[in-house]
Amino acid sequence: MSKELEQDFLNLLKEKASYEEALGLMFWDLRTNAPKKAVGNRSEVIGMVSQKVHQITTSDQMKGYIDELKNNTQNEIIKKAVEKSEDSYNRSAKIPAEEYKEYVMLQSKAESVWEEAKDKDDFESFEPYLEKLVAYNQKFAGYWGYDNHIYDALLDNYEPGVTVAVLDDVFPKVRNSLSGLLDKIQQSPIQPDPSVLHGHFPKADQEKFSLEILSRMGYDFEAGRLDETVHPFAIGLNVNDVRVTTKYDVKDFRTAVFGTIHEGGHALYEQNINPELAFTPLADGTSMGIHESQSLFWENFIARSEAFWENHYKLFKTYAPDSFSDLPLDPFYKAINEVKPSYIRIEADELTYPLHIMVRYELEKALIAGDIKVKELPELWNDKMEEYVGIRPRNNAEGVLQDVHWAGGSFGYFPSYALGYMYAAQFHNRMEKDIDFDKVIRAGDFTGIKEWLTENIHQYGSMKKPLEILNDVTGEKLNPDYLVQYLSKKYSKIYQF
Amino acid sequence: MSKELEQDFLNLLKEKASYEEALGLMFWDLRTNAPKKAVGNRSEVIGMVSQKVHQITTSDQMKGYIDELKNNTQNEIIKKAVEKSEDSYNRSAKIPAEEYKEYVMLQSKAESVWEEAKDKDDFESFEPYLEKLVAYNQKFAGYWGYDNHIYDALLDNYEPGVTVAVLDDVFPKVRNSLSGLLDKIQQSPIQPDPSVLHGHFPKADQEKFSLEILSRMGYDFEAGRLDETVHPFAIGLNVNDVRVTTKYDVKDFRTAVFGTIHEGGHALYEQNINPELAFTPLADGTSMGIHESQSLFWENFIARSEAFWENHYKLFKTYAPDSFSDLPLDPFYKAINEVKPSYIRIEADELTYPLHIMVRYELEKALIAGDIKVKELPELWNDKMEEYVGIRPRNNAEGVLQDVHWAGGSFGYFPSYALGYMYAAQFHNRMEKDIDFDKVIRAGDFTGIKEWLTENIHQYGSMKKPLEILNDVTGEKLNPDYLVQYLSKKYSKIYQF
Repeated sequence: MSKELEQDFLNLLKEKASYEEALGLMFWDLRTNAPKKAVGNRSEVIGMVSQKVHQITTSDQMKGYIDELKNNTQNEIIKKAVEKSEDSYNRSAKIPAEEYKEYVMLQSKAESVWEEAKDKDDFESFEPYLEKLVAYNQKFAGYWGYDNHIYDALLDNYEPGVTVAVLDDVFPKVRNSLSGLLDKIQQSPIQPDPSVLHGHFPKADQEKFSLEILSRMGYDFEAGRLDETVHPFAIGLNVNDVRVTTKYDVKDFRTAVFGTIHEGGHALYEQNINPELAFTPLADGTSMGIHESQSLFWENFIARSEAFWENHYKLFKTYAPDSFSDLPLDPFYKAINEVKPSYIRIEADELTYPLHIMVRYELEKALIAGDIKVKELPELWNDKMEEYVGIRPRNNAEGVLQDVHWAGGSFGYFPSYALGYMYAAQFHNRMEKDIDFDKVIRAGDFTGIKEWLTENIHQYGSMKKPLEILNDVTGEKLNPDYLVQYLSKKYSKIYQF
Repeated sequence: MSKELEQDFLNLLKEKASYEEALGLMFWDLRTNAPKKAVGNRSEVIGMVSQKVHQITTSDQMKGYIDELKNNTQNEIIKKAVEKSEDSYNRSAKIPAEEYKEYVMLQSKAESVWEEAKDKDDFESFEPYLEKLVAYNQKFAGYWGYDNHIYDALLDNYEPGVTVAVLDDVFPKVRNSLSGLLDKIQQSPIQPDPSVLHGHFPKADQEKFSLEILSRMGYDFEAGRLDETVHPFAIGLNVNDVRVTTKYDVKDFRTAVFGTIHEGGHALYEQNINPELAFTPLADGTSMGIHESQSLFWENFIARSEAFWENHYKLFKTYAPDSFSDLPLDPFYKAINEVKPSYIRIEADELTYPLHIMVRYELEKALIAGDIKVKELPELWNDKMEEYVGIRPRNNAEGVLQDVHWAGGSFGYFPSYALGYMYAAQFHNRMEKDIDFDKVIRAGDFTGIKEWLTENIHQYGSMKKPLEILNDVTGEKLNPDYLVQYLSKKYSKIYQF
């Protein structure tokens, strides 16, 4: 009887996962292959299938399975799948259907208004939409409930278990330390020369190098592929079909090299989830932050390291023969690690990047709490940028309007980026006890690293919550010291302070 | 009230069409992009979504709309959509669910058995599966019902309105005429030299020529794209996304040139269906035969014509500079129109092709009627091939086992190929009254032809049945004389008899 019920529940999850896989493929196709005019019809199809997914998520049938199986199964996978399904059910079912529909329309409208506002540096036109988006999110937070801070209800969407209390404990420490490091870096007489990186890098060569590196990372090309898109991403359609996209800038190889490795890190996570979790909501990275920890681990801790280039610079030069034949490793390595405050988050170096996140976190927390108003944002944004990053945006396009997140109603998302960074540093610290990290990287064989990540993190998919995985792997709760130590060690060497 | 009901009906059709579009994309992706290991999961997703389509098709909800709207709507599109939906409902609902499920499993198993049987030239291993498939189709025909011949019930799946009576009236005429032509051709002292076509044709050049020709045909690349696959096909995901695939053989340019143009003909049909039919079952070619008439019209009546190469030979040579610079047009044109009986249908020239279809038609009609037994097939196949095409297959791999159709349970499909050919000849004859066909083709501007096809055929999608469209366009019922005249005129000139 209970066995049968479990099977019925799994069948419903499988139906839902099937629609999600179809949606994933349609999304990927729109960004890679779809002809221009296809977009209109395809969007309607996506809307229709998404609605079906929403229906299943909030169906009485789903609720029935959740109630009946909740404390009534011996199967660990079913137990976790029930928990995750209950979470989704509650998130969706607590919002009145009519309100949710209005919100979805608002999101879509707001994104296009934002796009134009950003182009025209016109915050005022976006303001009323942002106000409504904030108001909806405040209302949703109320529906979902929270113990201490209203923003916790939103954070929980992206990083289950992480709260304002947790962030307010670690973020200021990181910020202070990074500000201190930034000062020393800027005062150092040693400064990398980024002009040595200039050159012309044919797309085909960049693609070959990207394919080679993904292959060395252990990315399985029989369960994935690499394509070119305007905005790079990785997408897991299922454990056997995890696709990566990248972007080739013929004037700057860094876009593709670090972008491909970053997305490759995401893809390795999805490719190495336990196949037994297939067709359940557990066959996915457990949170935005843990996902980002994997991409940043590969991008920063590996691909921006000296050890990595000691091995790969030679290989890289074979793909960029005209540009670096006379350039020694040292100035190359320093140039790709230049620290230089930027207005734009996605162009930030690895040291100032977390500071961009702090700006956003503090503003969106205050917005949702009602402590500040939308119309005050531009000024407050610029003040905080000046305070944390040390530069003041000259307009809103390079300031408060630069990110799509708020236009899409994603409040509570930004902290994941900084959390991912801290998680990565903690994993890195722990990994160094098992693996002679620099030596392995210098040898260019990442098998051990990939296996360590699979065994400790990837295989679990969403079976464990982010802080649970962190604790299981490192024996510690969130500890920002490792990130600070890592950056401090690396940059004091480069900038010699 | 009725308006509301119509809207509800359209919404249900739209939901169904959305799943079908997703299925189409998954199918296309599996054949073009999907990584090797993706197939397993993707097949399960396809199965799940197909099941959903089947559920909607046979749902009480669908039946309710059909019953309520059947003679009760002023809207012509709704009226036709109801008819088509009722047809699908009846076809599906009349087969007991359990039986249908067994049949689907049998199909899938039979296809893999057939593949191996073909490889090993082992008809016996396939025999029991084919027997079951025939038995199921006989049973289904009984469920569906028919007036005169049991095979009519199957034919109606592919070519609604065309019956054994219709085919038995025209096929023998065509067969006799073509046999007569074939005799004259084989006795002619003039024989084309196909060896002049040998050469090496780099894939990239073939691709460029394919793109150029599709473009000239009026194929809209903003609503489609060209890719490479093992088996070429065209697929309409929606009117704004109709994709073509082709195959490049570096030793034989004909595969890609005629293949691309053939699939381009299918694609033009789908691209030019009235957009108001979107998301209904009418947004599709009306039958296999009419679809094939469009691909064959472009492939044979245009691209194998002398007028076409008078214009395009020069262009073609720019893409194959090493091969034909010294070869005059005449031997080239004759070589690509060489008539030579072949064992394999898909390798047949345009004159003997219909004879291959006659062999299949007569055998499957007799099989379904119970007049012959599966185990007699190999011998009967070879006898008929000898009688109609003039050559006797040396084994079953190049005989009765060559096509996948029967292994997939598709009985009643083959006649569409020959019908498409006859339709095309009738359309061609009619078009010549409106358009100076050869002149237009010689000028290389196909705009008028494309517009004629759109206005007379494409725009209607499935609003008209095949014989209805034939009659509306030509003012005649099916008349095989036009095909015979066309072939006779063309080949008597080439072979000078």
